[in-house]
Amino acid sequence: MQPLVHTETSAAEDAALLLGRVESSLNVALDDEVRRWRTVDPAVAELTETIRAFVLNGGKRLRPAFCVWGYLGAGGDPEDDAIVSLAAAVELLHAFALIHDDVMDDADTRRGRPSVHRHFMNWGPRRFGEGMAILAGDLAHMLAERELIDLPANVRAYWYEMQVELTRGQALDMLHATRARIGRDDARRVATLKSGRYTVVRPLVLGALAANRADLEASYCAFGEPLGEAFQLRDDLLGAFGTEDQTGKPVGDDLREGKPTYLLACAQELACGADARLLRRCGDSELDDLTIRRIQHVLDRVGARAEVEARVSSLEEQSVEALAAAAIPDDVRDGLRALATAAVWRHA
Amino acid sequence: MQPLVHTETSAAEDAALLLGRVESSLNVALDDEVRRWRTVDPAVAELTETIRAFVLNGGKRLRPAFCVWGYLGAGGDPEDDAIVSLAAAVELLHAFALIHDDVMDDADTRRGRPSVHRHFMNWGPRRFGEGMAILAGDLAHMLAERELIDLPANVRAYWYEMQVELTRGQALDMLHATRARIGRDDARRVATLKSGRYTVVRPLVLGALAANRADLEASYCAFGEPLGEAFQLRDDLLGAFGTEDQTGKPVGDDLREGKPTYLLACAQELACGADARLLRRCGDSELDDLTIRRIQHVLDRVGARAEVEARVSSLEEQSVEALAAAAIPDDVRDGLRALATAAVWRHA
Repeated sequence: MQPLVHTETSAAEDAALLLGRVESSLNVALDDEVRRWRTVDPAVAELTETIRAFVLNGGKRLRPAFCVWGYLGAGGDPEDDAIVSLAAAVELLHAFALIHDDVMDDADTRRGRPSVHRHFMNWGPRRFGEGMAILAGDLAHMLAERELIDLPANVRAYWYEMQVELTRGQALDMLHATRARIGRDDARRVATLKSGRYTVVRPLVLGALAANRADLEASYCAFGEPLGEAFQLRDDLLGAFGTEDQTGKPVGDDLREGKPTYLLACAQELACGADARLLRRCGDSELDDLTIRRIQHVLDRVGARAEVEARVSSLEEQSVEALAAAAIPDDVRDGLRALATAAVWRHA
Repeated sequence: MQPLVHTETSAAEDAALLLGRVESSLNVALDDEVRRWRTVDPAVAELTETIRAFVLNGGKRLRPAFCVWGYLGAGGDPEDDAIVSLAAAVELLHAFALIHDDVMDDADTRRGRPSVHRHFMNWGPRRFGEGMAILAGDLAHMLAERELIDLPANVRAYWYEMQVELTRGQALDMLHATRARIGRDDARRVATLKSGRYTVVRPLVLGALAANRADLEASYCAFGEPLGEAFQLRDDLLGAFGTEDQTGKPVGDDLREGKPTYLLACAQELACGADARLLRRCGDSELDDLTIRRIQHVLDRVGARAEVEARVSSLEEQSVEALAAAAIPDDVRDGLRALATAAVWRHA
């Protein structure tokens, strides 16, 4: 029998293999937890089964991908297990954030299915549904933490900062939603804290730290900061204009929620008269489809949509320039450019 | 100048010093987080200020005490920092659990003040208050995790199990609350998972693990399991009969919530006729004070209160016997006996 040897592969193959292992690892961890809960009480195991379905039946795995590519760019060993756990943790943290977000926003759907609290409202009153969703989010958070048990202390310290930043972004978002209107700068800050950094920069740097290459942080920030913001702006455009097939949510859901996006902030600054009055109706969960279409037209007509699209292009350009200057292998650079394009120009 | 030397002290002095350091450490960690958030936005810093007030202005610090005593019983070095972080983490996890619990139960008060979501309902609608409380709990959870950064992997693995057990207990509790009545055994199981273990056994064993003494787990379980259950039964008695001064909550709050306690399960099994009908009114948040007093009389008259009191005594006896057999220093045994008595016979 021949000994196993690590043959030279391209970064794209390494990344694909690692992301495959992340998927298996998520499967194993979630199956294991479901099995353990079933031995306690089949009814209570529904909590873990719901998390499993949430994580495994959807999601673009963008954050694990940035984590894995950040690791490969730092020359990390593709046979190592730590990066697999770390990338799985990033995806579980995302599940935690989405499940709790949906309770806070009272979102009915997520990834084309009922949100977790809506799912549990089939079993009992609203308070029960929301309570179970709070617990489901908490448990996803714990599962993420478990993946980090064997990671070094500096990775876990950085992880802490990422989590706090995310929470701070969410708190700012909620505060802004209570205000009648917010400016472009406030909207940008929330987008950066709540979504941009935690989608791109933080996973990239976590990957670098797992490969013991803290020195890459500056390059990854230069590439990831504009990319993260562009990602979030695309999210906002999809949230306002995307179809249900694209977003897994009803058309115009962000507008009904009154989500304080940069897009809406631009439109509020540009609109006047009847257009401005129509925009002020955002945040009413009862808005009918016709009104949503009229609001979409306003976003277009006043030039807000075009402004956001232009900003996405310019941010992507900045990020590609920064990538060109980063001291990483060329095949990783190619992989990151492709991932960046997919994140920014996605339709879902 | 003389070098500092570690002079021989009794376990009680060591425990007091360690718990003092835990308090300072909680102060420093929470002040630091408040300061960091203020630089972002004074409004959003209210989230961290609320957690700080919640943690520092109340709580019996029972869990840190069991953690510290478990550590001293295992011969841990009282000068070490790891045990201080660990005990602080246990208290922060407790804050996380209480803040989320109060949202799930819609509890108005906690520790004699408005609960966190009630506090934030002064700033916006119910959804905003609950959303901010979900975030406050999440942040307390993260702060607990941060305290563990420098702890060894086996301690963090045990920590994970403790957290999952707590979540499972809370989920069972919510499921039971949707059922018309539950049996004694179900009520006991919830009490053990949700409160008993995580108050006594788990902190004790965490302390032992921090001192690298996994071998003490069996002794600490033998002592801590019955003690944790007795602690929870006392909690149930206080929740049904305690005054507002004692519990920091309105009299009979557990009865208005319909909390599926062992006490209530006993009463439901013992009562019939008009008494049984009265008990079925538990779980109505609008119950007036007179009805609460009548329900209290039923709990007394049918013998449920006496049965629970008898069980508390017998559990305490079991736990004291197990303590006598544990291979720990005598001064630690004395300290743990005093702590056990305080936990079981407390009035608040």
